[in-house]
Amino acid sequence: MTMQRWIRHRIRVRYQETDQMGVVYHANYLNWLEIGRTEMIRAMGMAYHEIEKRGLLLPVIEAQLQCVKPARYDDLIDIYTRVKSFSSVRISFENEIRKTLDDAVTQNINSIVTEQAEVPSGELLVSGSTHHVWLNDQWKPVRLDRYAGDIYELIKASFQ
Amino acid sequence: MTMQRWIRHRIRVRYQETDQMGVVYHANYLNWLEIGRTEMIRAMGMAYHEIEKRGLLLPVIEAQLQCVKPARYDDLIDIYTRVKSFSSVRISFENEIRKTLDDAVTQNINSIVTEQAEVPSGELLVSGSTHHVWLNDQWKPVRLDRYAGDIYELIKASFQ
Amino acid sequence: MTMQRWIRHRIRVRYQETDQMGVVYHANYLNWLEIGRTEMIRAMGMAYHEIEKRGLLLPVIEAQLQCVKPARYDDLIDIYTRVKSFSSVRISFENEIRKTLDDAVTQNINSIVTEQAEVPSGELLVSGSTHHVWLNDQWKPVRLDRYAGDIYELIKASFQ
Amino acid sequence: MTMQRWIRHRIRVRYQETDQMGVVYHANYLNWLEIGRTEMIRAMGMAYHEIEKRGLLLPVIEAQLQCVKPARYDDLIDIYTRVKSFSSVRISFENEIRKTLDDAVTQNINSIVTEQAEVPSGELLVSGSTHHVWLNDQWKPVRLDRYAGDIYELIKASFQ
Repeated sequence: MTMQRWIRHRIRVRYQETDQMGVVYHANYLNWLEIGRTEMIRAMGMAYHEIEKRGLLLPVIEAQLQCVKPARYDDLIDIYTRVKSFSSVRISFENEIRKTLDDAVTQNINSIVTEQAEVPSGELLVSGSTHHVWLNDQWKPVRLDRYAGDIYELIKASFQ
Repeated sequence: MTMQRWIRHRIRVRYQETDQMGVVYHANYLNWLEIGRTEMIRAMGMAYHEIEKRGLLLPVIEAQLQCVKPARYDDLIDIYTRVKSFSSVRISFENEIRKTLDDAVTQNINSIVTEQAEVPSGELLVSGSTHHVWLNDQWKPVRLDRYAGDIYELIKASFQ
Repeated sequence: MTMQRWIRHRIRVRYQETDQMGVVYHANYLNWLEIGRTEMIRAMGMAYHEIEKRGLLLPVIEAQLQCVKPARYDDLIDIYTRVKSFSSVRISFENEIRKTLDDAVTQNINSIVTEQAEVPSGELLVSGSTHHVWLNDQWKPVRLDRYAGDIYELIKASFQ
Repeated sequence: MTMQRWIRHRIRVRYQETDQMGVVYHANYLNWLEIGRTEMIRAMGMAYHEIEKRGLLLPVIEAQLQCVKPARYDDLIDIYTRVKSFSSVRISFENEIRKTLDDAVTQNINSIVTEQAEVPSGELLVSGSTHHVWLNDQWKPVRLDRYAGDIYELIKASFQ
């Protein structure tokens, strides 16, 4: 099975995300992973909020973070996301959080076009992964291929 | 009309609530005001989550903060809350956020008994107020005295 | 004195910013106002993190929010910011948070070019204002025209 | 080597911590783990903010979460924390987040005495662990036994 391409999404670090150590508070990296998933799903042609409207939930059941270097206020950050593995009941994502080497200070244009990338670039700050199960709105596990075959096929197609 | 008594609720400042200025990020003061309202309502004999289960929402339509001094990590904070005014469709709360003068560093007991207080004590850090309307779960305004007369009476009784 | 032009900065609502009412938790609007200020200052040719490196702090001493309609997950939000008034020791900003009427669901390009705008457009969700004092890194008030005359002149020039 | 005793610290779930799924947003569990560490360190006779004043930082370099059941607004949560392993340069904590089976709705007393516990009780919601390195305020690794031998001895003593 070929790997899925990375999807890159750019954000700017917010003042609120820093702590008194002068760096980004680590729990925010989990938020950024979620932003990465949202934009990866959008890049596949769906909006996650529409998936929820169809009565599907995709809660996190496991998460891992490895923090190499801290992100800092006003850094331009590229969140890389791809599906690592999936079945009809589960899906796992992997992520890299990288600081762009573009000149971030002077530019007043935050281009956050979401793009595919062969190879992540920039300085690696954090790598992470999250594991999820598909639930219905009663919080009961569902088989995605039966409940929403079109979504299942979209994920499958993204691997080719 | 007599003023309602202040309700005091104690919290400890979390590391996550600080920012790179070395103090509490100001948006957190709005969270603390909400915690104050939750505990004030509990002290009146209701749980806010049960009010929501009855199909009532109480969103913030206006908020004000005056920041006198910053709160810092690990400070013991007393949130004082009281109802400022109410009608059948609206309710306003006022708050004071104060740093306790109790020795906060050494004690490993965070007594957060919610109590009535005649006069707020401790060092004033922030004062604030929030204004709310009663909505049903369709986000339409409702008259509280008709929709949930028992809750309306509880609020009214707290002023005597 | 002429009014300063609005600076518009676009963000996407994050899942983390929602609460169980199904809308954005109101304290996040204060974060968004801060993002607006950061980008307004950048549009004036400075980076706020460089202002801090020069030993200046600009804490919030007062904040107001009027919440007209809630923002929701995945909405595209335009934060409008302008300086309302300033002196050598104080500065006040006003803001509008508006939901863009652009088709937000289908586009996978989040163009967040920061731009000047004559008149805010989109659906008004929240209006707000914040008031600040200039402090040095010892948290003592400073006169900006003496401490950092270039920054003072930049603000002044933005009104012409 | 004997295991360290669990330290239990009780918190109440805040409205702000929920998301539109109606449960606690998962990134908040990392905040709760930090609160657990802060209170565990206090129970050992130190305040973490005093450790920072001595020029030591203890950033997270790895974190794991396993989410069994979601926490919900107004739940009373017991955070269990213990040191899993340590050396002169590293320290690892493990945590359990449990929902107390005490009647949480009616009580208006949030007793959050931090206590030792032989065996965690209550319903398991989340288990997690974090891994840290000791750094000086220049973000360079330090040997704790040389830099702050008293802290090193306190940790060591907590295992007997």
